[in-house]
Amino acid sequence: MTQPLPAPHLGEPYLLTPGPLTTSYAVKAAMLRDHGSWDGDFCAMTAEIRKRLVALLGDPAFDCVPMQGSGSFAVEAMLGSFIPRDGRALVLANGAYGQRAAAALRVIGRGVEILDKGDFAPPRGAELAEILAQDPSITHVVAIHCETSSGILNPLPEIARAVAEAGRRLLVDSMSAFGGVPFDTAQIPCDAVVSSANKCIEGVPGFGFVLARRELLERAQGNAHSLALDVHAQWAELERSGQWRYTPPTHAVAAFLEALRAHEAEGGTPARHARYCANRDRLVTGMRGLGFATLLADEWLSPIITTFHAPADPAFEFDGFYDAMKARGFIIYPGKLTKVDSFRLGHIGQMDTHVMARVVAAVADSMGALGVRDCRPAPEAIATGEIA
Amino acid sequence: MTQPLPAPHLGEPYLLTPGPLTTSYAVKAAMLRDHGSWDGDFCAMTAEIRKRLVALLGDPAFDCVPMQGSGSFAVEAMLGSFIPRDGRALVLANGAYGQRAAAALRVIGRGVEILDKGDFAPPRGAELAEILAQDPSITHVVAIHCETSSGILNPLPEIARAVAEAGRRLLVDSMSAFGGVPFDTAQIPCDAVVSSANKCIEGVPGFGFVLARRELLERAQGNAHSLALDVHAQWAELERSGQWRYTPPTHAVAAFLEALRAHEAEGGTPARHARYCANRDRLVTGMRGLGFATLLADEWLSPIITTFHAPADPAFEFDGFYDAMKARGFIIYPGKLTKVDSFRLGHIGQMDTHVMARVVAAVADSMGALGVRDCRPAPEAIATGEIA
Repeated sequence: MTQPLPAPHLGEPYLLTPGPLTTSYAVKAAMLRDHGSWDGDFCAMTAEIRKRLVALLGDPAFDCVPMQGSGSFAVEAMLGSFIPRDGRALVLANGAYGQRAAAALRVIGRGVEILDKGDFAPPRGAELAEILAQDPSITHVVAIHCETSSGILNPLPEIARAVAEAGRRLLVDSMSAFGGVPFDTAQIPCDAVVSSANKCIEGVPGFGFVLARRELLERAQGNAHSLALDVHAQWAELERSGQWRYTPPTHAVAAFLEALRAHEAEGGTPARHARYCANRDRLVTGMRGLGFATLLADEWLSPIITTFHAPADPAFEFDGFYDAMKARGFIIYPGKLTKVDSFRLGHIGQMDTHVMARVVAAVADSMGALGVRDCRPAPEAIATGEIA
Repeated sequence: MTQPLPAPHLGEPYLLTPGPLTTSYAVKAAMLRDHGSWDGDFCAMTAEIRKRLVALLGDPAFDCVPMQGSGSFAVEAMLGSFIPRDGRALVLANGAYGQRAAAALRVIGRGVEILDKGDFAPPRGAELAEILAQDPSITHVVAIHCETSSGILNPLPEIARAVAEAGRRLLVDSMSAFGGVPFDTAQIPCDAVVSSANKCIEGVPGFGFVLARRELLERAQGNAHSLALDVHAQWAELERSGQWRYTPPTHAVAAFLEALRAHEAEGGTPARHARYCANRDRLVTGMRGLGFATLLADEWLSPIITTFHAPADPAFEFDGFYDAMKARGFIIYPGKLTKVDSFRLGHIGQMDTHVMARVVAAVADSMGALGVRDCRPAPEAIATGEIA
């Protein structure tokens, strides 16, 4: 990108967070109108969104079902609607979102096993194949695409291959990655993928969406544990009347349609992936230049968000850093690791490498204000990020 | 109101629907900014909303828990969180929302009985008292405040009295009424009340809220059937960190805070109730002047939405009427009665009697365009609306 993206309006800070994120003014301006949720114009917007999302996935065997609430509502809806009541799911967990999927399964009364890889280590195809061979009672595998707890991009193709070879079903939480990281169902065969409006499509929060095989949607009637979080029932109503089952977040829907059109105009997922990767590379290079270290080695860094070790310098403390960055126009994100002192910087949303350069400058400036003279982590911390 | 309210912007039609409804430009303009959901400024907005809603209810024994999703998500969350797994609820149903609450209870596996009053007849205190006396297994009663299927305002005080006298617990769905119809917990003792952002507070859709007794919230841990729709867990996280448990609809939250401030500036619930009642009266008087008949007698009409019989004139058909009204700047609402041909006109949102006068003129004009010469219903239809 040689032309800088426009800055946020109203003097608002950039959100270096993995959604809600900084959206374009056009996306927000689409909310300056009230829509009747029953009206034909609004139904046409919903239909266009569903069609565009299926096209983004690129597999006509899938259909799209939007679901009110945050992304976690859509994940729970997917799990409850597609895992039979007598099914048993293996959750591949390496952070908060894998743990959350497992927690949802426990609450809704589905059988659940966890492959717990700790704070960030990726679940690998070989170990998954072994577990599935040893436990024939597992019917489904639940995988997290980008685990934003650490920022790792999990190896979905090898995971999907192991699941397919074992004849099980794969459900994917691609919340923070869909639309910003290519997702090819030929490489990643699965039953369903879930994401939400306020991630890589760069809309505002208010609903998520489930992309699921149509034959799976047809068979899911009566399976859900919840009236509201029933993907089949929502799909059936959309197919019947073109309307959401219960009141949709009309303004967020209008914003999302604008965001989807902008996503296409930018060049679709490949272009957005390239922009996010460039953002990450500019950020990581700049931060390393200041002495900071990433938790993970390059091969595991996602284009979405990156975890940095906190400096060992005793002058560093997160709250002061947060305030200093906010005063400089950037909202940063705390770490989410249980054992390592860290913070996270997201690089999705309406930001480009020009903005990333300003982020690095603001970090340098903030370190000066805090009196941090050395941004390197403690030597023993570095080893914690190594993946065997 | 002598000063007309400003018209909607961008040439958009008025929504004569019971939410989503026509909001002010200031409410929508509050969405022109992205907020970090973790940031202190946003947490302060959430805290102010919770505090204002408790103040609106006017009972400090209650606390407020917002819940992502549509109002029906919040209703299901209330039912699942507060009715014990071995509890048994009696739902007072006279329309779609009572039926929906019963459906939610069935899906989530709580015991459920229905007092089904058909399309609109109100559940009365005496019959409720009799049922509760005969069935000691009923632990909870679920009541709908304004049933928008017909537009009836159900007699909550006598219902609440019967529940209290029988020593049972009352849960209220005041979705379409809260903030526009006075709700006094001294008159209507209950455990919890649920409503949503896009009704009488005049915000945009994206979340609902549960107002519940604090001692009930404290005891509800682990009761919910769902991870996402867990009122206790949402409340506990708000109390702990000031943050919503999962991503909040940040833009809808900002709009709602603006709407709450405007609600107060207008004079609170009494002033809004007066405006909505005036809207209804102007509308009903005007429509009756054209020959239309309301489904219900005056004493049962709510300030929210009114059901009118369809004209018997064979030139009338709803779709043509809808299009004619839309061309004149008004989105109307279909009827929801199972046995009577009808349509509904809502009178909440940024509208006053000036707008209502224009609605009546647009209806007259539309009837002319459709070739409807007589707006009166069939004589036998009138009797269907009589309440014994």
